[in-house]
Amino acid sequence: MTRNDELRLKEYLADRKALIDAALDGLLPGEELYPPLIFQAARYSLMAGGKRLRPILCLAAAEAVGGKAEAVMPVACALELIHTYSLIHDDLPAMDNDDYRRGKLTSHKVFGEEIAILTGDALLTEAFNLLARRDLMPGVPPESLLDITREISEAAGWFGMVAGQVLDVRSEGKTVNLETLQQIHRLKTGAMIHVSLRAGATLSGASAAALASLSDYGRQIGLAFQIADDILNVEGDRALLGKGTGSDAARGKVTFPSLLGIEASRSRAKALIREAVASLASFDERAAPLRLIALYILERKS
Amino acid sequence: MTRNDELRLKEYLADRKALIDAALDGLLPGEELYPPLIFQAARYSLMAGGKRLRPILCLAAAEAVGGKAEAVMPVACALELIHTYSLIHDDLPAMDNDDYRRGKLTSHKVFGEEIAILTGDALLTEAFNLLARRDLMPGVPPESLLDITREISEAAGWFGMVAGQVLDVRSEGKTVNLETLQQIHRLKTGAMIHVSLRAGATLSGASAAALASLSDYGRQIGLAFQIADDILNVEGDRALLGKGTGSDAARGKVTFPSLLGIEASRSRAKALIREAVASLASFDERAAPLRLIALYILERKS
Repeated sequence: MTRNDELRLKEYLADRKALIDAALDGLLPGEELYPPLIFQAARYSLMAGGKRLRPILCLAAAEAVGGKAEAVMPVACALELIHTYSLIHDDLPAMDNDDYRRGKLTSHKVFGEEIAILTGDALLTEAFNLLARRDLMPGVPPESLLDITREISEAAGWFGMVAGQVLDVRSEGKTVNLETLQQIHRLKTGAMIHVSLRAGATLSGASAAALASLSDYGRQIGLAFQIADDILNVEGDRALLGKGTGSDAARGKVTFPSLLGIEASRSRAKALIREAVASLASFDERAAPLRLIALYILERKS
Repeated sequence: MTRNDELRLKEYLADRKALIDAALDGLLPGEELYPPLIFQAARYSLMAGGKRLRPILCLAAAEAVGGKAEAVMPVACALELIHTYSLIHDDLPAMDNDDYRRGKLTSHKVFGEEIAILTGDALLTEAFNLLARRDLMPGVPPESLLDITREISEAAGWFGMVAGQVLDVRSEGKTVNLETLQQIHRLKTGAMIHVSLRAGATLSGASAAALASLSDYGRQIGLAFQIADDILNVEGDRALLGKGTGSDAARGKVTFPSLLGIEASRSRAKALIREAVASLASFDERAAPLRLIALYILERKS
């Protein structure tokens, strides 16, 4: 990644994050509404400084196939709501029992377990509310909204993200081979990253060929992202990552570095990124952000 | 309610429950799928012998406006999935901390808290998957499916069922007046009962007038149902209800009987039922099941 590309991407990501943050802020009910606690808790977690990777990929995929980012913004926000709900529930004492996330106390530490559970439930529910808001997406065919809702719910549900979490919590302290580890990640994070790209592209009228290429790209960066995350967990700087590093090892979690070693993990991530960029070969300059995002996955520090 | 009506309703409810149970059974993935635990846990709670009130109301509303029950069955099932998710999460130690539900151990007592949380999450997600299955509902306009998804998500979310649960957990042991108690119930159970009727009617092409009447009916039986539930909690037979009776009082929960006394609570429920039956005045014989269900609410023993 050249210095110039790095600056360009940094600007792109900051611009997109600002757009998405503003859209999310506009969607969140004010805390003057009743009961205020749930809106406070939703805002606390949703506005905790996430990278907005999933919504950014959704918007970038829309633009890569010639669509407009604003036209799919409600869907991009829905993806972030689902991501945030999954983090709140994953952090619960009965699950990963994390006290910190992105350098801030987790939802249940601030609002209590019952409100954290309910806030996650509400965010998941509101995500599907957004996906049904055809009034906000007048240019999108209702059939496509239903089809993408179906895909997103599959990626989030018991054949996707929830399945990954089940496998993950059931694998702690057990011997896990590379195949199972990849399956956990494919389900736990890969499926939602993959569908984020598909949603943006489908709703923007992508051709079948373009959709297939973006699906490949999504699968490849999804796994690369997770390997990079595992590497960061071993090597990352506590302040940047916002949670304790080395926490996977302390918990007896199997990771790519623990199975393959750091160097082989890094090589595998690099190969995946090369494949991801190759998947976009038939796209023009409008896919430039997706190419840069792929490269960035290897270089991110948090 | 005449003896004849009672038999007729009993037969109707048994028939509908069997239809819905079969549909739910067909929707649940087999336990040979991976990871099996989540499907086992989903089946355990979904097939725990619920009354299927919400899906029955959805099917009955469809028929009351001249539609076909089978045409809206996926939506009826989605409503039951949402209901079941809410019970699993409500029973969690951090929430109501109930060990039994319908005479069986609650999900977290059998599968552990983490799986109970994830099973609730998965059922909620699958509900929205069903609502997006236009392939299963070829006669229904996609726009109507999106609109009803929006209504259902509002009834289930932070302006509906979740809000009711937040108010409920925050009200335990506090002084609650009648207005707040009614608001809790309107949100916690009323909103989903109301939308169950609206969903069945809307998807069957109901007129605006018919939809308004069914909405009134839904609001009235929703509140009556909850008052009856509170009365049952005081008076009910432990074996029939499947959980400890008097548990509300033990927990310091305010109920209609604790605020109004048993007799005044019963009178209020009766008045609501009369109003609900009156709301259906313009409907023909096809609304007979809805009329009988209203009367049954007062007389149920479990």
